[in-house]
Amino acid sequence: MGLETFSVRRGQEFNHKKDRKGAPVKGTLFGGIPADLQQELFETICSAGRVKIERIVSRGHASPEGFWYDQEGHEFVLVVQGSAGLKIEERKDILVLKPGDYLSIPAHVRHRVEWTDPTGDTIWLAVHY
Amino acid sequence: MGLETFSVRRGQEFNHKKDRKGAPVKGTLFGGIPADLQQELFETICSAGRVKIERIVSRGHASPEGFWYDQEGHEFVLVVQGSAGLKIEERKDILVLKPGDYLSIPAHVRHRVEWTDPTGDTIWLAVHY
Repeated sequence: MGLETFSVRRGQEFNHKKDRKGAPVKGTLFGGIPADLQQELFETICSAGRVKIERIVSRGHASPEGFWYDQEGHEFVLVVQGSAGLKIEERKDILVLKPGDYLSIPAHVRHRVEWTDPTGDTIWLAVHY
Repeated sequence: MGLETFSVRRGQEFNHKKDRKGAPVKGTLFGGIPADLQQELFETICSAGRVKIERIVSRGHASPEGFWYDQEGHEFVLVVQGSAGLKIEERKDILVLKPGDYLSIPAHVRHRVEWTDPTGDTIWLAVHY
């Protein structure tokens, strides 16, 4: 059984797509972040059926004004580095997530990212299921 | 839409089971770790259908001698704190996972935990899918 290890150099993109079926894949959430990150970075790490596990990197990004995520499936997000403020439409407060904090968001619970750490990269693990 | 926030006091268990259908749940992977941890701690954070997201806390634990995990579904593991050595049956080396490192393990790829950090808690996020 083969194994593909992804290197961790800055500015080099992961090559998650090379993940062969049946082979374990090792990687790090901290590597392969482009120096230039004008848009948030969404990368699928692995997926099967309706399940998708992805890394998201935000560099001070937020959801566009007036935009709400309204998703068909459930989502679980974990902040691994940095911090973020999430707004659930039906709540008035902003939920602040720091490293180790997670939020499980059921399908069709409308939400948006109000802010992410303006001083560095916020790294998320997201599971869509 | 309600929200349940789990407190982070040591020695207090999460109450993930209270997760009402349809309500976002916020929590932290770093809280609620019992002072006494004779066995590895496995806690389901959320689940739906065949998907289960869990926190695992290891305190120097390893898989029993000769034991191999051989699972029906795929598993994704992320080390959030601490470190661990994983053995894939068909490989000779030990894969060392540090914070931010993940391993996706396809169904029926036999594997075991050779060691976890003997000096502190190793906290994992695991996704079974």
